[in-house]
Amino acid sequence: MLYLVGLGLGDAKDITVKGLEAVRRCRRVYLEAYTSVLTVGKEALEEFYGKELILADREMVEQEADNLLKEADVCDVAFLVVGDPFGATTHSDLVLRAVKLGIPYKVIHNASIMNAVGCCGLQLYNFGETVSIVFWTDTWKPESFFDKIEKNRQNGMHTLCLLDIKVKEQSLENLMKGRKIYEPPRYMSVNQAAEQLLAIIQNRRLQGEKTEITENTICVGLARVGAPDEKIASGTLQEMSTVELGAPLHSLIVTGTMHPLELEMLKLFSVDSSSFENNVCQRIT
Amino acid sequence: MLYLVGLGLGDAKDITVKGLEAVRRCRRVYLEAYTSVLTVGKEALEEFYGKELILADREMVEQEADNLLKEADVCDVAFLVVGDPFGATTHSDLVLRAVKLGIPYKVIHNASIMNAVGCCGLQLYNFGETVSIVFWTDTWKPESFFDKIEKNRQNGMHTLCLLDIKVKEQSLENLMKGRKIYEPPRYMSVNQAAEQLLAIIQNRRLQGEKTEITENTICVGLARVGAPDEKIASGTLQEMSTVELGAPLHSLIVTGTMHPLELEMLKLFSVDSSSFENNVCQRIT
Repeated sequence: MLYLVGLGLGDAKDITVKGLEAVRRCRRVYLEAYTSVLTVGKEALEEFYGKELILADREMVEQEADNLLKEADVCDVAFLVVGDPFGATTHSDLVLRAVKLGIPYKVIHNASIMNAVGCCGLQLYNFGETVSIVFWTDTWKPESFFDKIEKNRQNGMHTLCLLDIKVKEQSLENLMKGRKIYEPPRYMSVNQAAEQLLAIIQNRRLQGEKTEITENTICVGLARVGAPDEKIASGTLQEMSTVELGAPLHSLIVTGTMHPLELEMLKLFSVDSSSFENNVCQRIT
Repeated sequence: MLYLVGLGLGDAKDITVKGLEAVRRCRRVYLEAYTSVLTVGKEALEEFYGKELILADREMVEQEADNLLKEADVCDVAFLVVGDPFGATTHSDLVLRAVKLGIPYKVIHNASIMNAVGCCGLQLYNFGETVSIVFWTDTWKPESFFDKIEKNRQNGMHTLCLLDIKVKEQSLENLMKGRKIYEPPRYMSVNQAAEQLLAIIQNRRLQGEKTEITENTICVGLARVGAPDEKIASGTLQEMSTVELGAPLHSLIVTGTMHPLELEMLKLFSVDSSSFENNVCQRIT
């Protein structure tokens, strides 16, 4: 049996009882280590689970999946994923491969950022399409996510923006020279995401375009959702570019139309309550 | 401290280790019993948690919240919610009331139907706005959810349809006579939801309107997601009106534009693989 086990979002104890029992039963346990991270490292998980974990990077999962699934028809193998196994990134590939090999599989669900963002008080059924904001480079500055956020807001919907993670990336030089030397991991902060959004608004303005989203649009910055030191901050997009949220992972929400109860919840987390009130009033009047 | 603890979707063991520790520490433990249900009853939870549970119906949570929060500033109280505490239904009211009373609160997240539907292989970030399909009565047949599904599909997005739950409802007669006699609980099935959607399509057609969604639109029916006897069935909307999925809870997805990997996953669950292929081809050509 292949178990796909969600680990939730915080630390070792966010696994479900069912998930923990499965992990302890398995002969081999892989930890997917490229789409998300917990606030604790592999060692803390190993200690709590009482199991050795094998780190699975993208290469291993995508190119060496048969190794990963080896003998899973006769013994139990677990594949651990931060959040839910079918959360922000699905692991359909692995499931399809297992099915083709005649290996049964079981999914053990958990919270993912896709549903845990509800903790800020915005209602999940008022969210439109989720977008990913990628790190810009000097030569590559895509803006497609911005158009999706605009569309959601026009429809009155909130947008969850998942922020880029770069793990095990090679520099162009190392890549060209075939050297397997990796850059330190990078996690986009709410500040960086807000700056990119502000830059797009500026660009559009220079081109004479009017945007639905402005510096004063109410946003929510979230850091380490589900962990003991979780931080949530609500305020304008401008404020998001300087708010201090600490260590990764971060997510950003651009709000759409807000229900009074949603507003009241967001006020609990406002960076600056007077500016929050002002900008909300502007929006309503 | 007020703990809002998500129970996940299947049975007693879907609680997280962190959640279980919190529950066992609490002086009073409430089980929210009106927005969703697990596949096991209160007794099974009590036995596993080693705690007596107090059933909290809508009336208690909305009108007697102060009782529920009593002494939560000096002792620990838990409020258990099937799925995630801020999943399909948010419990913002309770949080806001706690904050006003100076009671600290902590959220312990878990899977909810909002993210667990990813198990069918459709990618969560390809979902548009979530809708609720309510039970029609002889005199009340709202269609607003249909327009939202149409809009999502026009935008290429899938729609998660949450299906109505009627718990502790009074008949009109008992309500008028002030008798606290409640009807047996009712949970909308995928069949019933599909029939209502088909009826709307018929209505529109009679009015000369063309709908984006037809009898042949590919849908996914899900039952008891996360439980050992979970069932997933993909097929046309017409097929959803007769598919056998068993006991509640059910959910329905109306697909939008599908990625090849999404299609390949849905094929695993097809009610009738040849009709599935035909209808997918029609859609693409």
